[in-house]
Amino acid sequence: MGKLPEKTIGRLSEYRRTLLKCFADSKTHIYSHELAHLHNITAVQVRRDIMLIGYSTTLKKGYDVKALIDVIGDIIDTEFGLNAAIIGIGNLGRAITTYFNGKRTKLKIVAIFDVDPKKVHKVISGVKCYPMNEMKTVIRDRNISIGILTVPPENAASVTETLMAAGVKGILNYTSTPLSVSPNVYLEEYDMITSLEKVAYFVKQIED
Amino acid sequence: MGKLPEKTIGRLSEYRRTLLKCFADSKTHIYSHELAHLHNITAVQVRRDIMLIGYSTTLKKGYDVKALIDVIGDIIDTEFGLNAAIIGIGNLGRAITTYFNGKRTKLKIVAIFDVDPKKVHKVISGVKCYPMNEMKTVIRDRNISIGILTVPPENAASVTETLMAAGVKGILNYTSTPLSVSPNVYLEEYDMITSLEKVAYFVKQIED
Repeated sequence: MGKLPEKTIGRLSEYRRTLLKCFADSKTHIYSHELAHLHNITAVQVRRDIMLIGYSTTLKKGYDVKALIDVIGDIIDTEFGLNAAIIGIGNLGRAITTYFNGKRTKLKIVAIFDVDPKKVHKVISGVKCYPMNEMKTVIRDRNISIGILTVPPENAASVTETLMAAGVKGILNYTSTPLSVSPNVYLEEYDMITSLEKVAYFVKQIED
Repeated sequence: MGKLPEKTIGRLSEYRRTLLKCFADSKTHIYSHELAHLHNITAVQVRRDIMLIGYSTTLKKGYDVKALIDVIGDIIDTEFGLNAAIIGIGNLGRAITTYFNGKRTKLKIVAIFDVDPKKVHKVISGVKCYPMNEMKTVIRDRNISIGILTVPPENAASVTETLMAAGVKGILNYTSTPLSVSPNVYLEEYDMITSLEKVAYFVKQIED
């Protein structure tokens, strides 16, 4: 199978989240229109995405929940798992660490880096915090391929250089600084201000 | 001007963030290709977005940074500001509150709601925390039109119902539960797992 588009991967990840919830609720089958409704998209979109990953069903009762979870997992998960690190452990870093660990077995936050001497060498939300100058060594030793940036915006660019030099292949940027990365590194950025400003704009249209 | 597409609003918000940074660095003019490079998009896209909001320049030195900040502000900001509330104050709620307050004058987090008796009636990250059963009253009294959800996933749907009943017009959902809202309410959702799974998928392609 070729490389799937970013948006498809995003939706597959969201479908799996919903399917895992269905599975936990003992729901064994689900229709494309049910999945569509839960994600505020069309049933055509859902069917297209699922056909794209080579899954189909002839059952009148819809997709088999357990089978679809497995098929999506085969696409999204890596066989041996991937290790990630948090850089900068404030409230957001803690929220992410707590949120992830224990949820997915194939993706794991295995290290935290921070400049604060009060945090360094401690275990925070279950993960060991290292000083910044040990970043290269720890990333190599722990086979970390993803860096999650929750540092102050002014440090984002320099930390990214260090991460790339250490061999990190994917960066999730939660700072308000837009970053540039090498062509062989995948970058995903999220800024809360943009989300809130979007909501505010549409609320203003509704109220006007 | 008609209602702009969601993606345009998202990009305008991101441009403004960069322009404010330029302004702080005493940079007075910027070319579309510079903005494009900073945001990993094409210069054509930047010029199209900026033409769409009715701003243009004949200057050889590019857009006037200060003027463009003001034009984007006229589109995105409300004249009298909008008030938002955080529902559920854990690490993520604190991160958001700290991140926003003091940054934008037109958008303000004015209340927090939580079930925890140790948090209720306290001031957290500069904002007062109220019990959940006072939600309707506080939302009306403080003129809150946006709710930011950082509650546990199992409470997301019921809290959303309460927020809509109290008159909230925009919801920013940070829980892992996909929500449905009334047609006159704007919903924006963000799930960290989806972002990290996208990064992991593309890292896997790079490593293979």
